[in-house]
Amino acid sequence: MTEHKTVAIVGGSGYAGGEFLRLALGHPMLKVTQVTSERSAGLPVSLVHPNLRGRTNLKFVRAAELVDADIVVLALPHGSAAKRIAEFEGKGRVIVDLSADFRLKDPEVYRATYGEAHPTPERLGEWVYGNPELHREALRGATRIACAGCFATSVILALYPLLKLGVLLPKDIVATGLVGSSAAGASATDGSHHPERAGSLRVYKPVGHRHTAEARQELPGNFPLHLTAISTPRVRGILTTAHAWVPDGYSDRDVWSAYREVYAEEPFIRIVKVARGIHRYPDPMLLDGTNYCDLGFEMDNDTGRVVLMSAIDNLVKGTAGHAMQSLNIAHGWDERSGLDFAGLHPA
Amino acid sequence: MTEHKTVAIVGGSGYAGGEFLRLALGHPMLKVTQVTSERSAGLPVSLVHPNLRGRTNLKFVRAAELVDADIVVLALPHGSAAKRIAEFEGKGRVIVDLSADFRLKDPEVYRATYGEAHPTPERLGEWVYGNPELHREALRGATRIACAGCFATSVILALYPLLKLGVLLPKDIVATGLVGSSAAGASATDGSHHPERAGSLRVYKPVGHRHTAEARQELPGNFPLHLTAISTPRVRGILTTAHAWVPDGYSDRDVWSAYREVYAEEPFIRIVKVARGIHRYPDPMLLDGTNYCDLGFEMDNDTGRVVLMSAIDNLVKGTAGHAMQSLNIAHGWDERSGLDFAGLHPA
Amino acid sequence: MTEHKTVAIVGGSGYAGGEFLRLALGHPMLKVTQVTSERSAGLPVSLVHPNLRGRTNLKFVRAAELVDADIVVLALPHGSAAKRIAEFEGKGRVIVDLSADFRLKDPEVYRATYGEAHPTPERLGEWVYGNPELHREALRGATRIACAGCFATSVILALYPLLKLGVLLPKDIVATGLVGSSAAGASATDGSHHPERAGSLRVYKPVGHRHTAEARQELPGNFPLHLTAISTPRVRGILTTAHAWVPDGYSDRDVWSAYREVYAEEPFIRIVKVARGIHRYPDPMLLDGTNYCDLGFEMDNDTGRVVLMSAIDNLVKGTAGHAMQSLNIAHGWDERSGLDFAGLHPA
Amino acid sequence: MTEHKTVAIVGGSGYAGGEFLRLALGHPMLKVTQVTSERSAGLPVSLVHPNLRGRTNLKFVRAAELVDADIVVLALPHGSAAKRIAEFEGKGRVIVDLSADFRLKDPEVYRATYGEAHPTPERLGEWVYGNPELHREALRGATRIACAGCFATSVILALYPLLKLGVLLPKDIVATGLVGSSAAGASATDGSHHPERAGSLRVYKPVGHRHTAEARQELPGNFPLHLTAISTPRVRGILTTAHAWVPDGYSDRDVWSAYREVYAEEPFIRIVKVARGIHRYPDPMLLDGTNYCDLGFEMDNDTGRVVLMSAIDNLVKGTAGHAMQSLNIAHGWDERSGLDFAGLHPA
Repeated sequence: MTEHKTVAIVGGSGYAGGEFLRLALGHPMLKVTQVTSERSAGLPVSLVHPNLRGRTNLKFVRAAELVDADIVVLALPHGSAAKRIAEFEGKGRVIVDLSADFRLKDPEVYRATYGEAHPTPERLGEWVYGNPELHREALRGATRIACAGCFATSVILALYPLLKLGVLLPKDIVATGLVGSSAAGASATDGSHHPERAGSLRVYKPVGHRHTAEARQELPGNFPLHLTAISTPRVRGILTTAHAWVPDGYSDRDVWSAYREVYAEEPFIRIVKVARGIHRYPDPMLLDGTNYCDLGFEMDNDTGRVVLMSAIDNLVKGTAGHAMQSLNIAHGWDERSGLDFAGLHPA
Repeated sequence: MTEHKTVAIVGGSGYAGGEFLRLALGHPMLKVTQVTSERSAGLPVSLVHPNLRGRTNLKFVRAAELVDADIVVLALPHGSAAKRIAEFEGKGRVIVDLSADFRLKDPEVYRATYGEAHPTPERLGEWVYGNPELHREALRGATRIACAGCFATSVILALYPLLKLGVLLPKDIVATGLVGSSAAGASATDGSHHPERAGSLRVYKPVGHRHTAEARQELPGNFPLHLTAISTPRVRGILTTAHAWVPDGYSDRDVWSAYREVYAEEPFIRIVKVARGIHRYPDPMLLDGTNYCDLGFEMDNDTGRVVLMSAIDNLVKGTAGHAMQSLNIAHGWDERSGLDFAGLHPA
Repeated sequence: MTEHKTVAIVGGSGYAGGEFLRLALGHPMLKVTQVTSERSAGLPVSLVHPNLRGRTNLKFVRAAELVDADIVVLALPHGSAAKRIAEFEGKGRVIVDLSADFRLKDPEVYRATYGEAHPTPERLGEWVYGNPELHREALRGATRIACAGCFATSVILALYPLLKLGVLLPKDIVATGLVGSSAAGASATDGSHHPERAGSLRVYKPVGHRHTAEARQELPGNFPLHLTAISTPRVRGILTTAHAWVPDGYSDRDVWSAYREVYAEEPFIRIVKVARGIHRYPDPMLLDGTNYCDLGFEMDNDTGRVVLMSAIDNLVKGTAGHAMQSLNIAHGWDERSGLDFAGLHPA
Repeated sequence: MTEHKTVAIVGGSGYAGGEFLRLALGHPMLKVTQVTSERSAGLPVSLVHPNLRGRTNLKFVRAAELVDADIVVLALPHGSAAKRIAEFEGKGRVIVDLSADFRLKDPEVYRATYGEAHPTPERLGEWVYGNPELHREALRGATRIACAGCFATSVILALYPLLKLGVLLPKDIVATGLVGSSAAGASATDGSHHPERAGSLRVYKPVGHRHTAEARQELPGNFPLHLTAISTPRVRGILTTAHAWVPDGYSDRDVWSAYREVYAEEPFIRIVKVARGIHRYPDPMLLDGTNYCDLGFEMDNDTGRVVLMSAIDNLVKGTAGHAMQSLNIAHGWDERSGLDFAGLHPA
């Protein structure tokens, strides 16, 4: 007989927590027992996540009311999880953190990136960076999973094969992420006000994006990596284009081979490079709600530039789905559990 | 041991056929054996429906290549199914038609609505109008299912309870449907050209909408019904607001009771009327890809006007999902099979 | 030699004030001398209204710093202008109020509509309702102009001709406004948060819209008027469809004649009813930034229903442009001054 | 007394021709005498460009009906103008071509870029590249103006100052353009079908963009230039981010100085780099309908990368407005004539 694992979600009124909840409710091995929100305690979760009307009767509780669960998922603002980690470790054997708090291995890099010392630097080594494509083995049996950042994931998955295989020239790699508005979270701000945002193409992080540190940590090789992030009118999704450089004679077909070699067995990676029709490269439009990372590329043979492209749903493969896939691996379940659905078309 | 039913989809390159295919691929009891498209024969279905990449290896075949299947789903342009029905009846025991061809019972109404005589008027009586909420009993064991129209469905489900219970005054009912662009199909036209459509609020059918005939046929009572359809920048979804009239003293609470009485057991109807938060009434934003019909209402006690609201995904509850639900009933399967997922939030 | 009039805008950091500023900067007879904002005092107006970069060097001042001007335009939150009117009357000979404070003539209607007693009921008679099409004569030389409400304007201009000419049957008129997000103002709220709003079709006022009172006041005849307002993903614009009822035999051609008779000389009203192409009826897409009100209609001869349609930019013909047109009339200037530009296509 | 110049627009049913028409109708020195369209000959231009309803009574004529005009503006598909240039030279003293036909000086580059030999290579030297910021002197009195390409313009204006001043290191420059759907023209295609395009972020030209040739021709210095173009859900606008490399010690302030030095007197260039508020960098949202090119930048001092940003309306500063500005210079008129309006906010 199958035994379910219980899950508590801490900080479940935001988009990441809400998305994990959606996935967990459909997962055959999970049973969500508690969802916390200080602001909405006592209210039905479906009031905040109206897509879940009729699908759960859970009500938000305060974090202080947490009881033990097999798995505790932390969906707190960046900085909070690390400060309160002892509180949550007492509640569950497996902890998944969706924030940036435990992603970086090096406390000095953390300090340089986030502007303050890490509260528990000695614990950083306990956490596995929650990227199944790079760390599947380490995830098996893991009890501390630091979910990868969304933009970082799109950059890492696009660049990993050619870097792993040592193909790229050691020149500057420039990656641009086109990001949907949900990536900034569920709190209204002046900049998220619909009339200011709906028609906007807003460069919000031309330089200095914090996910640069994650991507450098995870990607093999020594090369300068430059990230730029631009917000678009989409709600979900990241489309990343990365410009990298290959040796003379390296061909389109070689890139195909490299991607296939590295990702052949990956259940959530699709290579999209089609010679006809209108959907020739990765497009986040097709990925809303799914855990896919679609990857594509195009060579400029005259210059040795290769344009690598990746598309994900920032809340799924970029956050909650990636975490769920990691959890599936940690527990030895089918990696697709709770994640096996197609996107929509048209969408 | 479970025995699967085989399904062939005729006209599978359009949006309705593609959506049925998406649902069928995830249905535990169905096995899609063929999908036809004259224009795309020989090509992978995932070239036309790129959301299905990695989820099926099916290629389009020509209708002439159809072999027998348990179920044949017709997703042809309006007018085609009726003309070719004999061709398809030889291929499957159960026929589901997603077009308007077999929805109307009265050939004269068909002629008045569609401007030509029905090619097989004597067969109209064999078809069950594919609306589970109104015709669940008739659908059990049915072998001819005429899937209800999308705007009609949104109108019918909103108005049915108060009409069935005889509550409404016999005054003019005015219903306005705000419709997404996918409702016009997969073929590019001058009016669907993105620069002309993206910012548009276009009244495309102020009077004379053909679904008026369906709604009149299905709704009990005698009253003038007026439909207006406006296209919006959404891709999917219909939001319908219907203005109807109740007797003095009829209250908000009475509407609640009526909806609950009629729809209490319905798996895909949710009543949405919330006093707080930002999602107080039905909104198609929350329904993309789902089979829900969300219903809401508000009373104007000063005037006896009740505003009834419904939201659906036109391609799911408005077409392919409604058809799937009908098929589930016809076969005695769990009504939710292949349809049991939540929408997204945010979306 | 032409003499300019000086203008001060009070509450210029919101959308209505900002739009009036944009128009005034391009007006040949006006010179903007001050723009107030308590929150942004000291900052360049182009920081808040970035479209005006390079077009004005004005900085916001506090209302307490106001000096005399020929014209004072009040763009304050509803309720503020009436309470502070004495303060502003000392600053300028001509006062234009963009809020709802002075639109209603009857203090009892004001109380019923806005839920509190009017602070200066004895002064209401001094104000002209700022709708040039209905009150051109009264506006000549006017020194107190209460700018009409945006949804009210779209309803009034659509219905006025057939009501003025006594054509409509005394049956319930139902009008639905599809409204852009800018109508809710410049302050971010949970409901205006882009991820919650971008894909939404949200019925925000099914019954009880306050502009009903304005429309009833201004429209001739005795009939029940019902308004419903729905927010759409557009930023600007209102599309109103009003369902009214004409006698047997009243034809399409008769509606044309009525509209022409009443609006023949109107510089900002266009009748849009085209038999070919894709732009057959009014569409707010074409009106962003313009002062036009496009009007259209369609008859349902079988039922006597006529669908009247109007489209405006809520911030221009719905607010600042309407006010500017009224000011032009009040001063005897060309009515088009500062307002004579086309919309964009595509847009 | 002012003497007007007459203008004929050839190919006026497309977006470029329509936009030139909109601007010309508001130009104090121009009188539009004819607009041609083979497909729409005989129809009112306002049927195709509904924003011009009530603003012109012109009807389309066939090109064969052209009579002499002072200025002939060619808005034909790429390749047509060069083939038919003799036909049009007989009709007007000044010819402005909005296509790509006469932009490139070197017939070999033309052949390599457009895949066929130029029909009149000997004439290429007669044309001035219509970019006022780079070629103002050459434009004075010019009678052959080849309007610059839209993406090229956004790239050129962003990069020109640092290249002109010899600041940039000779490293690969990568520029990404986010482009609105109107850039692909007025003809509906499978890819422009609203349901396929509305939610899409589509890399349509990862390598090999034809405007690379224009940008290389116009920009000083010797460096590899790489362009990538991505379509976004906006209708108008291009946002370009270009990554370039400066020497150690080159600062933010130095970039400011360079931009100011080169563009100090430019009427349509604004430098947008603001430390507070939500509109900190160029954003095409604010530029619809305007002739501005907004420029911004940000330095990554750790790496020597400078991110240069430009935003334009592709149909105005990217096409028709740029051409109008060039025409103004050619005729010795105020450069702002017909172009002096602000964008909208919100928009």
